[in-house]
Amino acid sequence: MPATVGPMRAVVLTSYGGPEVLTITDVPAPEPGPEEVLVDVASTAINRADLLQRMGFYPEPGPKKEHEIPGMEFAGTVAAIGARVAGHAVGDRVMGIVSGGAYAEQLTVHERQAMSVPSPVGLPDAGAIPEVFITAYDALVLQGGLASGGWALVHAGASGVGTAAIQLVRAIGARSIVTCSAGKVAACRELGADVVVDYGSDDFVDAVRTATSGIGVDVVLDVIGGDYVARNLASARFDGTIVQVGVMGGGTAEVPVGDLLRRRITWIGTTLRARPVEAKIAVSQRCAADLLPLFESGSLRPVIDRRMRLDEIADAHEYVASNANVGKVLITI
Amino acid sequence: MPATVGPMRAVVLTSYGGPEVLTITDVPAPEPGPEEVLVDVASTAINRADLLQRMGFYPEPGPKKEHEIPGMEFAGTVAAIGARVAGHAVGDRVMGIVSGGAYAEQLTVHERQAMSVPSPVGLPDAGAIPEVFITAYDALVLQGGLASGGWALVHAGASGVGTAAIQLVRAIGARSIVTCSAGKVAACRELGADVVVDYGSDDFVDAVRTATSGIGVDVVLDVIGGDYVARNLASARFDGTIVQVGVMGGGTAEVPVGDLLRRRITWIGTTLRARPVEAKIAVSQRCAADLLPLFESGSLRPVIDRRMRLDEIADAHEYVASNANVGKVLITI
Repeated sequence: MPATVGPMRAVVLTSYGGPEVLTITDVPAPEPGPEEVLVDVASTAINRADLLQRMGFYPEPGPKKEHEIPGMEFAGTVAAIGARVAGHAVGDRVMGIVSGGAYAEQLTVHERQAMSVPSPVGLPDAGAIPEVFITAYDALVLQGGLASGGWALVHAGASGVGTAAIQLVRAIGARSIVTCSAGKVAACRELGADVVVDYGSDDFVDAVRTATSGIGVDVVLDVIGGDYVARNLASARFDGTIVQVGVMGGGTAEVPVGDLLRRRITWIGTTLRARPVEAKIAVSQRCAADLLPLFESGSLRPVIDRRMRLDEIADAHEYVASNANVGKVLITI
Repeated sequence: MPATVGPMRAVVLTSYGGPEVLTITDVPAPEPGPEEVLVDVASTAINRADLLQRMGFYPEPGPKKEHEIPGMEFAGTVAAIGARVAGHAVGDRVMGIVSGGAYAEQLTVHERQAMSVPSPVGLPDAGAIPEVFITAYDALVLQGGLASGGWALVHAGASGVGTAAIQLVRAIGARSIVTCSAGKVAACRELGADVVVDYGSDDFVDAVRTATSGIGVDVVLDVIGGDYVARNLASARFDGTIVQVGVMGGGTAEVPVGDLLRRRITWIGTTLRARPVEAKIAVSQRCAADLLPLFESGSLRPVIDRRMRLDEIADAHEYVASNANVGKVLITI
């Protein structure tokens, strides 16, 4: 049952705009519902969607809350449990995705949406796992159908999702062709990318043709959109899949629909946050089953560019916007 | 075992161009392989892809044959069987899809790709079934996931695929919003369309919003592409699917990728003819299991605009190109 409903520190959006709108306030702590756990948050991490939300372009789904607290992932310790909670106990180390509320000292989440923290990963570092590994696994494997022996084209290889994707592809016995800027080529290679393309100097379509003997990749994982779309279509094999998880390069694109048709390509747009609770639980449970053993064995690990404190949240947003990071920017609470 | 290898009449493409290149010639009849049946063709039917093939834009997949005979579907009677054939006997009434070769008195096909002709349907009319019912069922249900209670948006409702789709949607307990030209509205309604939109005077996006209370359709079945693409995205519900089976409205399109992403839409390009033999067999077997009972019960029937003879094939191509038909143009052999 609920333990404390004391005040907690949290980043509350009272207006939208630049990083300066991210101010820390005392607000009432949330109370867990009967199937929820209350988590003492050890860490959260920055996602690009957080920057959009801060600017007012990506409000939290669902009815408007009294306090709009950003933050889509967390790691921490169970502080209290609801009356019907069966799978977690006070003191458990948990991590997971949420629709919002993770830039705070405490949050509540459905118990089946909270995954156990793998033993080799410490708190707070586990806060860098949920969003990017769930996004990459859901996109590449659950939606894209990538399997051993296959090829994936992963854009923005040094991003949070990119660094998770490179490791995942390697861990399941598939192969990756990864794009990134010149300064991040070495990092992508170290993570296990089979082919790394500096997008400033080389064409990824050529690289795909060479690596796959002209066949194309099974799955494209793209956060860019824009003028990458037509080139993604040219990179996918017959019956291949393109999974679009972002549109950083532009929200519209000229698309050769005839190529989509002739090559029987499936192009999937997807996001995690707007999914209903049952879908978030389902993907969390699936990722817990399929991925936690790979963290236990050391095949996967969170990639953390830097650790910052909650009171540095504005600087952290600016740093992520600058695109200088390799992997995640973690916020310790 | 092979019965006769005598000459047969067939339309052989010796050059590409207008309908005048469709000339009838005597060529050697094909011999069935060990798992194939030889079929005395009672009928074939015209598909838009045949017109593209005639113009040289859509060659039959696979190694070039000595005689390029168009024709992607057939109905007829088994005349001979290969040594390992187990599921068909001489005299059986069969129908099916093929990569080519159906504009001819005889053809060979893998025995498991040949479906039984449902008893209420006569020869030659069964030749109007395979392409459009397999295409529509594969697109709407097998790839699009349409189920009872759902909504489908079907473009070109009076086309062969459209007339099959309208019936299928109704037969599985789902509902359809159908676009067509003014003169074909009544025909679409008679086939069972729930909402019919005259594309010349009304906006199908509005019609979808009204019919689905703003939610959108589960599946869009589109043969148009071009400027329909953005409007298809606006018509699909969250987690909806767009299945692209043609690009009659243009091979490129300006696409709002952000909409694809935000609404988690899956956009699938698909064709039947270029699939490998195992995929053609699989979809034929699945359609035989799922659809033949619906033909037996009378829920489904071939929609035939007119019946023409093989020596009228050039006129038949011109007629299909004119877009005046409601349903299929059948060619009796």
